[in-house]
Amino acid sequence: MPELRKDPILGRWIIIAKERSKRPTDFVIEDTKTRGGFCPLCPGNEKTTPGEVLVYGREPGMPANSSNWRLRVVPNKYPALVIEGELDKQAEGLYDRMNGIGAHEVVIESPNHDDRFSDLPHDQMILTFRAFRDRIRDLAKDSRFRYVMVFKNHGRAAGASLEHSHSQLVALPILPRMVTSELDGSLKYFRYKDRCVFCDIIHQEIQQNVRLVCENPLFVTLAPFAPRSPFEMWIMPRKHSSSYVAIDEETLAGLTDIFSESLRRLDACIPNVPYNFVLHTQPLGSDLLDHYHWHFEIVPKLTSIAGFEWGSGFYINPMPPEEACRYLREVEL
Amino acid sequence: MPELRKDPILGRWIIIAKERSKRPTDFVIEDTKTRGGFCPLCPGNEKTTPGEVLVYGREPGMPANSSNWRLRVVPNKYPALVIEGELDKQAEGLYDRMNGIGAHEVVIESPNHDDRFSDLPHDQMILTFRAFRDRIRDLAKDSRFRYVMVFKNHGRAAGASLEHSHSQLVALPILPRMVTSELDGSLKYFRYKDRCVFCDIIHQEIQQNVRLVCENPLFVTLAPFAPRSPFEMWIMPRKHSSSYVAIDEETLAGLTDIFSESLRRLDACIPNVPYNFVLHTQPLGSDLLDHYHWHFEIVPKLTSIAGFEWGSGFYINPMPPEEACRYLREVEL
Repeated sequence: MPELRKDPILGRWIIIAKERSKRPTDFVIEDTKTRGGFCPLCPGNEKTTPGEVLVYGREPGMPANSSNWRLRVVPNKYPALVIEGELDKQAEGLYDRMNGIGAHEVVIESPNHDDRFSDLPHDQMILTFRAFRDRIRDLAKDSRFRYVMVFKNHGRAAGASLEHSHSQLVALPILPRMVTSELDGSLKYFRYKDRCVFCDIIHQEIQQNVRLVCENPLFVTLAPFAPRSPFEMWIMPRKHSSSYVAIDEETLAGLTDIFSESLRRLDACIPNVPYNFVLHTQPLGSDLLDHYHWHFEIVPKLTSIAGFEWGSGFYINPMPPEEACRYLREVEL
Repeated sequence: MPELRKDPILGRWIIIAKERSKRPTDFVIEDTKTRGGFCPLCPGNEKTTPGEVLVYGREPGMPANSSNWRLRVVPNKYPALVIEGELDKQAEGLYDRMNGIGAHEVVIESPNHDDRFSDLPHDQMILTFRAFRDRIRDLAKDSRFRYVMVFKNHGRAAGASLEHSHSQLVALPILPRMVTSELDGSLKYFRYKDRCVFCDIIHQEIQQNVRLVCENPLFVTLAPFAPRSPFEMWIMPRKHSSSYVAIDEETLAGLTDIFSESLRRLDACIPNVPYNFVLHTQPLGSDLLDHYHWHFEIVPKLTSIAGFEWGSGFYINPMPPEEACRYLREVEL
């Protein structure tokens, strides 16, 4: 059983995934090992993953886990958290821990092994964003869960361990530190100004027009004012909404358009750059919030600048966002 | 002039180091480029670095920046922050920025290019820890500075751009987020318990004896209860002290002994593992604090597990610290 542990000083929760444990030297080997030709995410290999929890595009009447599909969501075969059991919260002296109860799912974004997410046509890419919504809605019914992290690792340097294009959902019984910090920070702003800080950012960025990468009637993509990484981008809905699960079909289409354009701009600047994206949305089971605003953050993984920053919270970024924005705007698509 | 920018939601400060700016494709090239045979940190090349601000082991009467030395501290030739100028704090709409005033120094830990920090003999390694103390003391005289970050990147994967063994100091006009979070967290504990949380951790870890990697009369090395990374280690003085600059010669010797042993244990588990270490100490110009306790955190950089964690504050660690501790204890030195 995995375990959730809380740092007693910072309040930061960590998943100790014992089942993934390895001998010390295995860590180094994994870093460079090459993969064989077998892909568990490809059509025809459905029986090598746990049974699907969501599928789009299979013809009516075909059995579950058969090969005809456009997108599948399956539980992770090596989950960081497990779905069965009680939280069993315990103290160990001054420390806090609980059982690693949660869900860990893989969104297989296309049946084609060689498709890259950024190159997917609109009608295929939209399935991923719809799957995020539908899976969060379903996981929210489990009262043990307080948050669903949605993210994608693209490229080995960004943590992807399988080539076949996929993203992940992790349902958690706790709120990650990033979420509580954003909620606290935006609430503080709201109490002072009586406005959503994200709405104010969007308003200012449209006016200044120096960090606005691209836009459409429903969304903007910004190079944020204080980015951790060169070419970091935030994709934000123009209309205030704290919860991704409330997204409708028209908004899904607008999101897909701007996500596709933003990633293609990034890829044109730095071909095949590894990146992570993370959905930032409100906690499960809370009312809609006036002070919070859902969005996606896309953070390229440029190892030449990632040093000790991730362990210290202190970032040095050699690329002003205004300059990154100019590059991103000017590329030919 | 570099710039300090604050994220308006999280309050996280970022350094925008414009002078280090590059074209987009340069980021990818840097990642794999090989270095020529020239090392600016080697004896004989003193003129290729800015003039030294501290030197140990040069014979009396020899001129500054001549080749006879055991340890040198020099300003970084490509500093993230610059020493001359005013902070000039400004608003840009809802954003906050100031000039990137600060100091960025390089501690050249040995004259020998091929020495690894973990293999340095006691009488050489101690110079590094003494240099940290002496440079922080000196930088503290500049009233513009509120904190000195002290850290080492070992290995390219951990952000080291030069092979020659070195560490770095960055004097900052703001408090990094990690520091304020630790101060806030430990103060909250102190107000509730009237005890230092770090002292309580040391006490509990010695009693439980399952995450205690090694110890000597003055220090303990722990595998922390909720580690971000496999084989993460914290080196903590047994005696309560909030400020590293108060360290005396006997304590420096004890620190050197346990640091050397801890790194050699780590290296015996995972040969030549890249790692970062960061000194955690109280802000400059504050009285000694009852609730805070200086320490070093050593975080191995194992790329196979570093995914989107650094951008989300959400960590999955496949190695329970009790198991890492057993490996670290059992290796032959």
